[in-house]
Amino acid sequence: MNFEEVVMKRYATKSFDGKMIDETKVNKLLELIRYSASSFNLQPWKVKIVKDRQTKEKLSPLSWNQPQITTCSHLLIFCAETEVKELIDKLEKQMLAAGAEKEKIANYIKMMRDFEAGMTPEQRLIWAQKQAYIALGNAINGAKALGFDSCPMEGFDPKGYARELGLPAHIVPTVVCPIGFANDKPMAKMRFDAKDIIA
Amino acid sequence: MNFEEVVMKRYATKSFDGKMIDETKVNKLLELIRYSASSFNLQPWKVKIVKDRQTKEKLSPLSWNQPQITTCSHLLIFCAETEVKELIDKLEKQMLAAGAEKEKIANYIKMMRDFEAGMTPEQRLIWAQKQAYIALGNAINGAKALGFDSCPMEGFDPKGYARELGLPAHIVPTVVCPIGFANDKPMAKMRFDAKDIIA
Repeated sequence: MNFEEVVMKRYATKSFDGKMIDETKVNKLLELIRYSASSFNLQPWKVKIVKDRQTKEKLSPLSWNQPQITTCSHLLIFCAETEVKELIDKLEKQMLAAGAEKEKIANYIKMMRDFEAGMTPEQRLIWAQKQAYIALGNAINGAKALGFDSCPMEGFDPKGYARELGLPAHIVPTVVCPIGFANDKPMAKMRFDAKDIIA
Repeated sequence: MNFEEVVMKRYATKSFDGKMIDETKVNKLLELIRYSASSFNLQPWKVKIVKDRQTKEKLSPLSWNQPQITTCSHLLIFCAETEVKELIDKLEKQMLAAGAEKEKIANYIKMMRDFEAGMTPEQRLIWAQKQAYIALGNAINGAKALGFDSCPMEGFDPKGYARELGLPAHIVPTVVCPIGFANDKPMAKMRFDAKDIIA
């Protein structure tokens, strides 16, 4: 399926049929997510994956009881990773291990450190969350490309999710994406006119 | 090119060769962007397109003089559209015009209005910006799928851009994406380990 088909066939699935996606395919999707773009390549997000029925049931009331939560195969919870300093350290190590010369990457590393230091904790969270939305885009397109469906969802209680999933404070639930096989039919796509998206 | 190839071949191009992309292809890209997912389908963003040399030159110092700005073919500036109330009105009209029954969509429209009313202006901006990042994702993947290159960039002065481009206050430059034909070679892709992206 070429990218145009993917974009035109993807839709926010309202309910799934409950069948499980093969783990091989889920792992392929995670690779498409992992290779998403991010600012400075810092990848400031993590995905929490839920596939057991009990946890889905517990998350359902924290998600307005939307049927996608309990009928999906896997629930991907995109979380912002706010410990950005640690990510910079990790990326620097990885670059050096891959053969980069310390002096040659020094400016790049400094730029990242200055950028990180210049943000308030709230700005850091928002910045990380924005990058998570790019990864979300690869997830929903990737799901369709791999032959299943998805539904990006903001309607959930991030604090309740963090509590229920036992996430540490630096991992902040940001946007949820159930994946599975659709049990509904897509409505005709509706968007604003082409001229209306131009500033 | 299938989606996996698109994801693996896309990279943040450091410099472009200055050749212009056919307008037909740019319009195809805009369609891929237009059909991006967004919260409530509200599409709270607009794209400002710059292709003339003079404007690019003016934007260059507002972008740390990064060479992508002046060497690209088209510069796409993804802006948040913060007049969300107006978007809800517009979407409601469009749904009615497409044959939806007023009573049947009343709950959906109310949900959107409550959601909008519950946000501070700052939250509204951040929410719109997050949606713009999903659209950005379609832009960078779409560019590669259509045979050209791109570079998502946060390193620019949003206020300076707004001033230079004469944008009204409700259209807020959020992330920049030059597109064109690469004049560099991609480095080997580097990402954190698969296990490290799981929360």
